[in-house]
Order: sequence, then C-alpha cells, then structure tokens
Amino acid sequence: MDMTRKTASKVDVLIIGAGPAGLMAATWMARCGINARIIDKRGTKIFSGQADGLQCRTLEILDSFGFADRVWKESNHMLEICLWNPDSEGKLRRSDRIPDTIPGISRFQQVVLHQGRIESFFLDSLEEHSKIKVERGISPYTLAFDETKAEDPDEYPIEVVLQHLTDGQIEPKQTQATIDGAATSDGLFRSNIAADNDTDEVLSDAHENELTVINETVKAKYLIGCDGAHSWTRRQLGIKLEGEQTDFIWGVLDIIPITNFPDIRMRCAIHSSKSGSMMVIPRENKLVRLYIQITTTEIGSTVERGSINPKMILDSARKIMAPYKLDYEYCDWWTAYQIGQRVASNFSQYGRIFLAGDAVHTHSPKAGQGMNVSMQDTFNLGWKIAAVLNGTANRSILKTYETERRHVAQELIAFDHKFSRLFSGRPAKDIMDEEGISMEEFKDAFKKGNLFASGVSVNYGASIIVAKADDADDAEANGYEIQATQDINARVIGKEHLATNIKIGMRIPSFKVLNQSDARPWHFQELLKSDGHWRIVVFAGDISNGNQMFRIRTLSEGLEALVAKHALGTDSIIEVLMIHSAPRIQIELLDLPDIFHPWSERNGYDYSKVYVDDLSYHEGHGKAYEGFGVDKERGCLVLVRPDQYVSWIGELEDGGDVERFLGGVYG
Amino acid sequence: MDMTRKTASKVDVLIIGAGPAGLMAATWMARCGINARIIDKRGTKIFSGQADGLQCRTLEILDSFGFADRVWKESNHMLEICLWNPDSEGKLRRSDRIPDTIPGISRFQQVVLHQGRIESFFLDSLEEHSKIKVERGISPYTLAFDETKAEDPDEYPIEVVLQHLTDGQIEPKQTQATIDGAATSDGLFRSNIAADNDTDEVLSDAHENELTVINETVKAKYLIGCDGAHSWTRRQLGIKLEGEQTDFIWGVLDIIPITNFPDIRMRCAIHSSKSGSMMVIPRENKLVRLYIQITTTEIGSTVERGSINPKMILDSARKIMAPYKLDYEYCDWWTAYQIGQRVASNFSQYGRIFLAGDAVHTHSPKAGQGMNVSMQDTFNLGWKIAAVLNGTANRSILKTYETERRHVAQELIAFDHKFSRLFSGRPAKDIMDEEGISMEEFKDAFKKGNLFASGVSVNYGASIIVAKADDADDAEANGYEIQATQDINARVIGKEHLATNIKIGMRIPSFKVLNQSDARPWHFQELLKSDGHWRIVVFAGDISNGNQMFRIRTLSEGLEALVAKHALGTDSIIEVLMIHSAPRIQIELLDLPDIFHPWSERNGYDYSKVYVDDLSYHEGHGKAYEGFGVDKERGCLVLVRPDQYVSWIGELEDGGDVERFLGGVYG
Repeated sequence: MDMTRKTASKVDVLIIGAGPAGLMAATWMARCGINARIIDKRGTKIFSGQADGLQCRTLEILDSFGFADRVWKESNHMLEICLWNPDSEGKLRRSDRIPDTIPGISRFQQVVLHQGRIESFFLDSLEEHSKIKVERGISPYTLAFDETKAEDPDEYPIEVVLQHLTDGQIEPKQTQATIDGAATSDGLFRSNIAADNDTDEVLSDAHENELTVINETVKAKYLIGCDGAHSWTRRQLGIKLEGEQTDFIWGVLDIIPITNFPDIRMRCAIHSSKSGSMMVIPRENKLVRLYIQITTTEIGSTVERGSINPKMILDSARKIMAPYKLDYEYCDWWTAYQIGQRVASNFSQYGRIFLAGDAVHTHSPKAGQGMNVSMQDTFNLGWKIAAVLNGTANRSILKTYETERRHVAQELIAFDHKFSRLFSGRPAKDIMDEEGISMEEFKDAFKKGNLFASGVSVNYGASIIVAKADDADDAEANGYEIQATQDINARVIGKEHLATNIKIGMRIPSFKVLNQSDARPWHFQELLKSDGHWRIVVFAGDISNGNQMFRIRTLSEGLEALVAKHALGTDSIIEVLMIHSAPRIQIELLDLPDIFHPWSERNGYDYSKVYVDDLSYHEGHGKAYEGFGVDKERGCLVLVRPDQYVSWIGELEDGGDVERFLGGVYG
Repeated sequence: MDMTRKTASKVDVLIIGAGPAGLMAATWMARCGINARIIDKRGTKIFSGQADGLQCRTLEILDSFGFADRVWKESNHMLEICLWNPDSEGKLRRSDRIPDTIPGISRFQQVVLHQGRIESFFLDSLEEHSKIKVERGISPYTLAFDETKAEDPDEYPIEVVLQHLTDGQIEPKQTQATIDGAATSDGLFRSNIAADNDTDEVLSDAHENELTVINETVKAKYLIGCDGAHSWTRRQLGIKLEGEQTDFIWGVLDIIPITNFPDIRMRCAIHSSKSGSMMVIPRENKLVRLYIQITTTEIGSTVERGSINPKMILDSARKIMAPYKLDYEYCDWWTAYQIGQRVASNFSQYGRIFLAGDAVHTHSPKAGQGMNVSMQDTFNLGWKIAAVLNGTANRSILKTYETERRHVAQELIAFDHKFSRLFSGRPAKDIMDEEGISMEEFKDAFKKGNLFASGVSVNYGASIIVAKADDADDAEANGYEIQATQDINARVIGKEHLATNIKIGMRIPSFKVLNQSDARPWHFQELLKSDGHWRIVVFAGDISNGNQMFRIRTLSEGLEALVAKHALGTDSIIEVLMIHSAPRIQIELLDLPDIFHPWSERNGYDYSKVYVDDLSYHEGHGKAYEGFGVDKERGCLVLVRPDQYVSWIGELEDGGDVERFLGGVYG
C-alpha cells in the first residue's frame, strides 16, 4: 500500500541524519533561533555499540552548550595508556605507561561513553531550548537544486521529497552474540563488512513489507547531510569518497570481561608476538570495549563474512592476550570492520548543501576520533549558517566550512593511516627485524597522536574569519576576496606576539579567572557559551594604574559604537568581556566604563562581564595572564569567534582593526 | 459533601510533610528499599521564596545521593562576605571582607538556590530509584499509638487517619507585592507574623469550600513528622517548642535589585548607624534576597500586621542602604518574620514516632541554617530506621537520633540567638558606647559562626554507634546499655591518635585518592554513597613493604569473616575499602587479598575497592594520608557509619574491636 500524498512546506535548514553530527547542527539552530528540521530514517536512537570516545575538545564544546557535566559524570575517564608487548622471549609484558590526555592541554580529559547517551543529552538540550524535534522514520527520496536561486538569500533553492515510513520503527536485523546464545546487539549492519543497510534498504524493506509511505516535499534554504558513511545526500551530489582500504579485519566486542589481565581498566595497546594486536578501552558500567585483530596481513587474506561471530572474535582475543585469561557472561554489542581511510572530494555544493561526519570521512575507530570529528564538523558549520540566516553575515563565510574541515579530515586520515598500520603490524623481534614494527616507533606515534587525538591542536587557516598571514594562493579559496571589494588595501592581520599562548585559528585556551563582582572562579571557556555571539575579550592589564585605565576608557568609546553597529534585535552579535590583572579588591565594577556593566531597566547592572586574574579563596590562582601569555601591565584585545576559535589579536588601540575585520564578515 | 470512605493499609514508614526534611527521609527509604509513603497537605511543591542557603555539609550529603552537581550548577556560589558599617562620621563604608566558606573545610562551598529546586532534585531522585511518590493534597487527621506493640518489630503500633483533599490543589492565598501592583508570591502565609495557615486551616478551607474529603486509615511501623513549625504531629504528641521570641521584626524581599550599591553580588551584613541592619544574599537568576530590619527594639515595639508590605520593607531598606540607591522592577517573593529561637523538648516518642526539621527547631533565617539542619535531621534518622527495618540493627540505635540531633538544634539556637542580637543591635558609636554593638565583636562572631554554619563541625557524642569516651551519665541516654547485656566488660573505644584529622563522631573529611586500577582521581567522600553500607576503610599504609603487606593479609582474613557475618541478602551491610600509600605502579590489584577485589560470576573482579594516595596526571597530589593525619607506613582502620560519620578508629590488628562494636549495634 503506497498512500502517496503531496504536501509542501518550507524550512530554513533541513538536516538529514540524527546521529551526533546532525544533532550538533540542530543544537546550533536551536540556540540561534533558526527554523530547522532534522529527520532520521531509523525509528529510534542507538542503544548500544557504535562510537564511544570523547576528546577533550568535544567536552569543551558540549560544555559550551551546557551538558558536558552529564557526560563527565556518566562516562569512564581515561587517564593512563598501558603498552603491552612481547619481551625478548616473546612473553607479553607491560612495557610503558603514558598519560592518556596530555596534562595541561584542556580542563577536561578524554572519556568514554556510549554514543546513545550523548545523543540523549542532545535531545534533552533541544527540547529545553527549542521546538526542534528529531522526526524519525523519515527518509529522503529525491533532491533537486535550482542554481538560479543559489545566491538569493530569500530563496529556497533546495527541494527534497521525503518519505514517511509511518508503520512503526524500522529496526535493523540483529544476530545473536553471547557465547551461550543469548541475544545481543550486533553492529554488523552498520559495518563496512556487512552489506549496506542504509537508506535504499530501509525504503526497499518498507515497500516490501507494505509499510505505509507518505511523500512530503520540503523546500529549504540550506541542507546538511549527516547521513553516515553510505550518505544518500553525498550520492545525490555525486561526490566520491577517495582513499584506500586494507584487508586487515578487526573485530569489536563490548563485554563485561572476566579476566586476570591486570590492566583491563586501563586503555591498553597489546601487540602479541604472532597473533596480532588488540586495544582495550574500558567503558562505563563495567563494560570494556575490545578491538581485536582477526587477520594479520594487509592484503590478500580473506575471511568469510559469515564466519565472523563473537565466539570467533573472542578466540582471537584469547590468543593475543595469552597467557592471561579472558571470558565473559555479558556481551552488550559486537561488530567487525575492515580498515580503510577515505575522505570526500568536496564537503559542500552551491554554498547551500553541506556534508558532515561519516558522510565525508571514514577511518578506523580505534583512536576514538569518529564521533568527535563528526560533531566538530557541524560545530564549525552551524553558527555560520545561523549567522547568514539571521541576515547579518556575508554568505562567503560558508566557504570556510570546507576549507577548515576538509583539512582536519585529511589530517585525521593521515594520522589514522599511520597509526593503524603501526598497530596492525607484527612487532619487530629485534632491531634487525625490518619487517616488524618497532615498539619504540609505535610508542612515539602514540604519544604524538595523543595531541592530535585531543582535538585541541586543530588550527584553521587564514580566511575571512581568521586574521592571520597565509599563502596568497589560499586567499581565494578561503573566501577573503570579499575584502578587496570593500576598498580595503590590506587584510587585517592579528598580532600574535601580544598573547603568546593564544594562537589565531586555534580555540582559545582556558584558565581560571574570578568574577569581579562576586569573586567566583570560572574557567574562562565557561563564559564562552555557544549562543552565536562573537566575543571581544579585553585583556585590560593593570587597571589600578591610571595610564592603563585611560587606555581602557578610550577603547570603550569605540567598543560602544561597534557593539551598537552590530546590533541584532535588542542584543548585538558582539559580547564584550574584560579580564584585568589589577588586585580584585582595588577595583570597583561601577568605576569602569558603562560597556563593562551594561544597564537594563528591569535587571539593573549586568555583573557578568568583568573578570580578574587573582587568587581565589578555594581554588588557587588561575594565573590566567601567564597562561594566555599576555603582558600583565599592558594587556591586549582578542576577538573570538562564536565557536571559541580565535580570529584576531591586537593592541588596546587596535579596535579599528576589529571594526574593519568584522565589516568584512558582516558586510 | 463529605464522602467518608474507610480504607486501611499498612506501610513501614509514613512520612508527613514533603519539604526538604521529609524528602530527605523518603530518599533514604528509596535507597534502602524500604516500604514508605510520604504525604503533603499542599497541592504543589514550592515555586518561590522560603529557604535558599545550602551549607558545605549539605552539599556533601546531596552528593552522597548523587545530585549535588545539579545544585552546584544552578546555584549562586557564595565566596566572600562584605561587612558594611558606619564610619566615624556615620557614613556607610565597607569595613571588611571575609571568606564565606572557610578555605579547606570541605570540597564544596556554601551556595544559594531556591528551596523549590532542591525539592525538584529530590523528587527526580525518588523517581529514579524507587516507586515512592509524594502524595499531595493529603492531610493527617488523627493519630493513635498502641504502646503494647511498641517493641515488637513485626507490629504496626501507629494508626493514622488521613484525609484526601481530592478536588484540586490547595493553594495558599497570596497578596500583591510589586511596587506597580503586579502579583507576586507572598510568604506571609508561612510566616510567624501571619495567622497560622497549617493543617487545621487547610482542612477547614477544604470543608468550607466543599472539597471532597476521603478518609483513609494507615497503620505504620514508624512515623516521621516533618510537618513544619506548626507541626500537626508534634501537637498530637503534646511536645512543646521551648524558647523565646523578640519583637525585632524583619522583612524579606526576593528581588532583582536596581542599585548602585557596589557589593550587591556579595553576601553583605550592613549595619546602618540609626536605621537598623540588613543582610544581602545574592541568588541565582540575578535575584538577590534582602533581609531588612523593620523594628529596631528588642521588646515593646509593635508593627501592625496589615501595614507590612513590599513597599514598606523597601523603604526600610533604602534608609539602611543610604546613600546608595535601591529599587526593583521584579519581585519574586516577600515575607516578614519576628525573631525567635525555639527547640522542642523531645524529638521522638516510643522509639517509633520522630519529629524533624522546623517541627523541632525554629530560629531566624539569616544564617541560612534552617533547610540544612532540617535535612540533616532526617539524614541522621533515615538510615537508622532503614537498618532496623531491614531486620539487622538493634532498635536501640534509634535513641541516638534524639541525642545526636537535639544537641545540634540546641547549638543552632544558641548560635542564632547570639548572632541575631548582634545583627539587630545598633552599632556602637565608639568604644565608650556600651549600648551599641561592637563591630569587631560582630566580625568575630561572624567568623566563628562560619565554621558552625558550614555544618562540618557537627560532633556527635559517645553512643552505641560512636565509639569514643564520654561521661558515664550519657551512656544510658545514648543507648549503649545494650552492650552490658552482651557480657562485654568494656565499651569499645576508638584510638583517635591514629588518624589525627579524623574525629570520632564527626563526618570523615575528604581528600583526593586515585583508583588503583584506572588511576582516576576521586574525592574520597564520593566513594561513600548513601546506600546503607557501613564502611571499613583500611588505611593500608605502604604495602610495597613486605611486613606491612603481611599485616594486611592477616587483617583480610578477619574482614572476610566479618563481612560474611553481616550479610544482607547477596550483599553485606559492610563495604571494605582500601587506601594505601605505596606508589601506584608498584602495586597490582590482583596481588592483594580477595576481599579487596571481590569476584562475581557475571562481572568478574570488582575494581572499585582499592585506592592510592599518589600523584594524579591532571589534578595534582591529594596528599590524603597527610590530610587524614594517618601514618604513611603503618596506616590504621576506620569504621564509617552509613551517614559518613566516624564510629571508630583502630590499628590494623584491631579488627576484633570492629566485630565487637558492630555486634553491639547488630545484636
């Protein structure tokens, strides 16, 4: 029965896919008040398996939306990595311990929590802040684009026909997993070893089983495809994933292990002498995820798809882990995958349709990057679309999505390529064993990889929204030809030497500062909520010095005008924050210029704008100026994007540069 | 219409009143699996006004139930107190700044959050952990007690007739509060200045308005009356509140202030030269609570009840705060009260009926103690009733509720008496002004009061559950005559010198320790969840030393037997935890005796029992042995009650004392 019914509607942003990338996009729309819909072909969110690793940077981002604390509380925290290798007699031994998160790079450490819980937190947050709801059991059917309307901000050049699969939840078939035959979840349906079970299959199943299908036509200004490795959206655009695949096959078991292996609650990389490698990822609720190598050659081996099952994976694990014992009563989920690294040739089309997450990069899961990089794709994209839709930002900022994120994807793929091969290879017996992998080299790669894996080292290139020097070749690609049209002779370039630990193009680091008005310590990043605001951070220096206070008064007049110029409704797109370095008790908030304590008729003064780098009563001294690398006497200005990345740094007298820079973005 | 219908049912614990004290009692029952009901005469929980201050100790307790983080996130944190006094020319000036929470006494600091939010967190927690729901619109009607059944554990000696007011929510009448006449909440109905609007009135209203009333008879083993200052339960028992009342009248405004007073976001004590005193309590959501003195004499002044309104209170505040300005657009709530300090002659009857919270102690609200001491009453009581009902603990432990908590109430009343009078008095003009209050004396009182007000200084006396030396006179009252009947010559007395910063009778302090198995830092108190377990904390010392490990092996045999002896279902009433001081990487968990890594068929080893005092990767060194004052080589044993209070301290060889001590409790 196919009760085709035509309905048509308009929406500013249509998001296809409600995994972490899609939910992150929807969350930005919710916080910026954008009219958006998010659909997913599946009937429910994920309840087990899939991704679990969360980087420091992801936690910082989730905190900017107000729910990192829920992750932090429920997750397993990963503190130490233990490396296990064969000794000179081939016996497995612990050779090294290294910290899992490099101390000092973030206020968070890497944690592990099931993807389904992360999705729940997003859903709760959407419900709290908007009327956007994930519409499930809806699959895209056709996509059309009217290129003549691409550059008109009021037009809806995208037309998507959606199919509503209304008869119940479309669930993947599951196979049995526990040793004793009790049913458990099975990830094969999403694995690259299993047959595709994506949109086409869902639709075909729906038709075969005579589920009711209703067609709906949606016109959209923007479309974000977050629909996974087999992305329907990507295929409609004819964009290819480029890269390679090996024959290394790995199995995954989520179990409560029964074992005498001493480090089962540590993240471990285990290289056996002959039986392949294994990674141990301890998780929440006593679970441990094991990544277990099944085939030990890069090319040429074949494993029958049907022969892969939890028993077979467990047997491989036992050989790798010997002489330690391994068993389980409870298995939560299992899957198998082949290692490959691929990245899409393009991340967007027409400046209207964007791809994110697994749709544009696939790789091995062991470094715990997938969910993180996927969410960070749409974290990068969401505020830009919102800024354009709110009628103020130049559409050219949308080009920076692809330049910024495709570069990250390529780095990810290169990292994973190297790391996977080092991990899948046989350990060298000795220094003369050239075919084997040097365990010293592996350890070094692991350590270096840790900084990359934390997510805090992402460094966006020069562009219309990143005011740093760059090769001229990159200029056009990065969208700053727009400035030339505004009769400005030179691009604005920030002065990085004024804040030696703040890097233009990177996320601003965080140190503790005290609120001037109530002495409460805050981690600076906690003040940078993801609500669409750009922030001008005034490092005011020692304002107990009259000359310095004079500089601040002068600056504040320009800032007043700039904030007013970029008004958005009763608000502004710019928030001004101050961190000064004078002793807290020598400064009175109300002695500072008005812009640092805005007034409202209903609420009186705003006490949330001025902070101080001083000793707290209970949490020590944040040493923020030292941490940021800013001169405590003279200070500086820093312009921070709505996603916490730094656009520009300058002197307190360089407010004109901020005005010129923002003029290029909000032309 | 009175559709009287008789139904009868049995319940183990009936709790009357669903304010903070009642909800805390219900939460214990939920966590210990006790069959309990909680009723409240009002139709809804509180949405504004009432209590707001939360001490450090209260946060520690809420954390033991798993939701202090919600309070911490939403609340306003109180860091600094500013004292404002007239200078020699009578002009108001800031004379002092003191920390609001004494640094180092707790991992939490005092915070402020509206009582209604606290109640919400309790309700969410009840829903998550049990089927106990607050039954609203239900009022007690008669209470009968069968004394012949008092000591029989299987009997239900209490019979209460309940009246169900089924027609909608019984809401208090409200008056208008904003200057411009917009309606707002008004706390007068609960104030001691307003007419009683308690159970009698609710019932009378219900009858007058022809609300349907259904009678229900409930038989209970235990009854907890948490029904407020006008406690119906207390009146049924004929127990009186003893104490006195002054004529000082204070007004309370919860407003978003519009003011140029510099410290409006600090907790402030303001003494004007002639116009009385005022306290500023900054709160969440830009609100500030102001306690404002209206009458300035202790006896003899009269203010017409009807003349008290927000405008009049605001006028008083303006006089006190002059020359600073004060105004508001938004008022959330207001009330007025007379200062008095009263405490009940008894806290319990028959060892079956208990009173807690405002039902047994009333005082001025300014020190932010009421909600805290009330919750701590039932935090003390709940686990004891649960332990008796679960069939293992001796009923005599229930006597310790009154001895432990009435002493705290008396201290509270003495503190409040002194503090209130210092605060309500006129500041001395100079050293010769003997009628005036010395501002130095006030500051000293404030500082000393801060330790008391934190809640961490509570020190329970010797009893059947506190193994410390005490006057013989106290013995019977405190319930340890029971030991004599067991042919034990002497009471067990702990050896406090073995842990110089752990005090028998006080809550165990907290320092960071690392989990042996995954290196994760935990604040020690986080491990002491409120789930009814006693904890034997084995400070194992330096177990990298063979002799010390020998002591631990010897101890562990005795502990195995002790834990098995006190089995409760498949669990035990005792949990054994270890904190050792050897370097973490020199110790392997599985080399320790079995009791430190209990085994289960389904889950394998338990990795949550052994901790180490060592350097963490990201959070420094907890220096726990130093903090607890325990010898790093030799260690000691500490027995902790289910409510985190310390029962006993001894040598690693003194396990026999623990057995004897617990034998007295669980006879």
